[in-house]
Amino acid sequence: MKKLINEPGDVVDEMLDGMVMAHPEYVRRLEGTNVLTRADAPVDGKVGIVSGGGSGHEPTHAGYLGAGMLDGAAAGEVFTSPTADQLQGMIDACDGGEGVLCVVKNYEGDVMNFETAIEFAEMEGDTEIDHVVVDDDVAVEDSLYTSGRRGVCGTILVHKVAGAAAARGDDLAEVKRLAEKTVERVATMGTALTSCTTPEKGEPTFDLDDDEIELGIGIHGEPGVERVDVMSADAITDHLTERVLDDLALEEGAEVMTIVNGMGATPLMELYVVNRRLQELLSEREIEVWDGWISDYMTSLDMAGCSITVLELDAEFKELLGAPADTPALTVRE
Amino acid sequence: MKKLINEPGDVVDEMLDGMVMAHPEYVRRLEGTNVLTRADAPVDGKVGIVSGGGSGHEPTHAGYLGAGMLDGAAAGEVFTSPTADQLQGMIDACDGGEGVLCVVKNYEGDVMNFETAIEFAEMEGDTEIDHVVVDDDVAVEDSLYTSGRRGVCGTILVHKVAGAAAARGDDLAEVKRLAEKTVERVATMGTALTSCTTPEKGEPTFDLDDDEIELGIGIHGEPGVERVDVMSADAITDHLTERVLDDLALEEGAEVMTIVNGMGATPLMELYVVNRRLQELLSEREIEVWDGWISDYMTSLDMAGCSITVLELDAEFKELLGAPADTPALTVRE
Repeated sequence: MKKLINEPGDVVDEMLDGMVMAHPEYVRRLEGTNVLTRADAPVDGKVGIVSGGGSGHEPTHAGYLGAGMLDGAAAGEVFTSPTADQLQGMIDACDGGEGVLCVVKNYEGDVMNFETAIEFAEMEGDTEIDHVVVDDDVAVEDSLYTSGRRGVCGTILVHKVAGAAAARGDDLAEVKRLAEKTVERVATMGTALTSCTTPEKGEPTFDLDDDEIELGIGIHGEPGVERVDVMSADAITDHLTERVLDDLALEEGAEVMTIVNGMGATPLMELYVVNRRLQELLSEREIEVWDGWISDYMTSLDMAGCSITVLELDAEFKELLGAPADTPALTVRE
Repeated sequence: MKKLINEPGDVVDEMLDGMVMAHPEYVRRLEGTNVLTRADAPVDGKVGIVSGGGSGHEPTHAGYLGAGMLDGAAAGEVFTSPTADQLQGMIDACDGGEGVLCVVKNYEGDVMNFETAIEFAEMEGDTEIDHVVVDDDVAVEDSLYTSGRRGVCGTILVHKVAGAAAARGDDLAEVKRLAEKTVERVATMGTALTSCTTPEKGEPTFDLDDDEIELGIGIHGEPGVERVDVMSADAITDHLTERVLDDLALEEGAEVMTIVNGMGATPLMELYVVNRRLQELLSEREIEVWDGWISDYMTSLDMAGCSITVLELDAEFKELLGAPADTPALTVRE
């Protein structure tokens, strides 16, 4: 294993320190925890939006802390849910008096720990707390880690929609409605050219030959649903996009936004090649692309590969997605 | 070789199409060329700032097209200089009547082709054109590709300083003075955990064992100046930072900005671990960090590793670095 790390057991702690040192204007660390919050949390008079999960998906989640997106982000160990008490501490720290919405990726550990944290936070305080579960991965119905579909890169769009709704003053019920509507209309599928290597294990989580790739991978080093011979970027993009579009059942004339997401070790050059084919395909199907993002948003350590996310839009979504966001990993200008 | 590409010979063309489709509000392609310009180029009454070089370093250079940075970016084939006629076409397209400054990384092909392009552009037009050569890599004095030091990630800071000076209305001589001052005060050094693989060759440009890394690498798959056993992130950071600081000969109390740059296949998690140690080291030496950037700015295809850049600041630089920039790869807010 070759990684820019020190002791494997220290990597999350040191990464969080490095993030705070890099972005002191955006984030601070709750003392004694692996929770980062907005530097100005809690923001009074606004619904707090928080998320969290295992580390190894950076910039998810802490990269999205800031105005117009998240108030809190809890980091578990690599590919491991944060504990319920850390989640509870985060919820408390992001409570500006208008309630808190937790955005949870659909993994059993995350869902269980968030539900426990919410229960305790509600018992001990007087704020209303609610949550949404994101399950945008169309590749599998159940996996090693989940009942139902996994939550992957579409989560970022839930952060953006909920964050913008909270920023303009929507109440908790309305923020939750919009977050759930995002979950219903977003779909993702990914491919891996390589496995990934966790710092603790030090070896790839699955073996993959030099002439093979995996289609339908998750973000925790799970193998995909199908192992195939190496394909061209266009063929891969066609496969992923068709699965995503079938799931959404879009009609001609639909308006969408797209994400081409790198899995952690994918050069930007390759993501742009994928984006070219994605945009061609959508144009052929007479689906209009309102905006498209290309970068590393939801990664899986040092995995090479990408995922494609499509969200079906309407006027309500466009207002929220186009609203300003100011975070380390994502900026939307006024 | 596993890459998200189609035919190796098409990768640059397809990438550029993918960039234009991703960022139509920022960039357009000069028809029949591999030159991208700002969507609104030429900007009348402003010195044009242009750059270019081989592909494989994305987001360099086209990712920096936009207000406050570059007006034009020419993309050669992978690790190959753009031709002089493409560079001349770019210079012409970015000439808003106040002259054009070319920012050139110090590689023999780039320098030669830019000089030829400038000569022809000056013969055929009546605009003044000038250039600066960036040579921030402290690792080697001469290399396979260069006489003198190589131009690497510090180039981004030259784009930022020159772009901000041009945006506020400085004339060509003043923009050039500020760009050259940046070159004098910036230093970079990098490390590779893996080699990189060019699409055409399909094999790593150098061999590296599982327990070895290279210190002092360039951005074209050149091996480093020293091959050593795998080291911890802290030990690597110490080594790179000390070389960079020795070159700059900073005194206690100096003020700097830093970049921790990923080489293309480096997870953000690891860059933050490196940043933590970098900031510690600078603090120990009583050097004040005004700002620090962490991302992929100047990559080398699918190389894993990082580089560290330090620029010594003064009031003039802080004004220009803090001025707004609005580009696909870098945003500085008002």
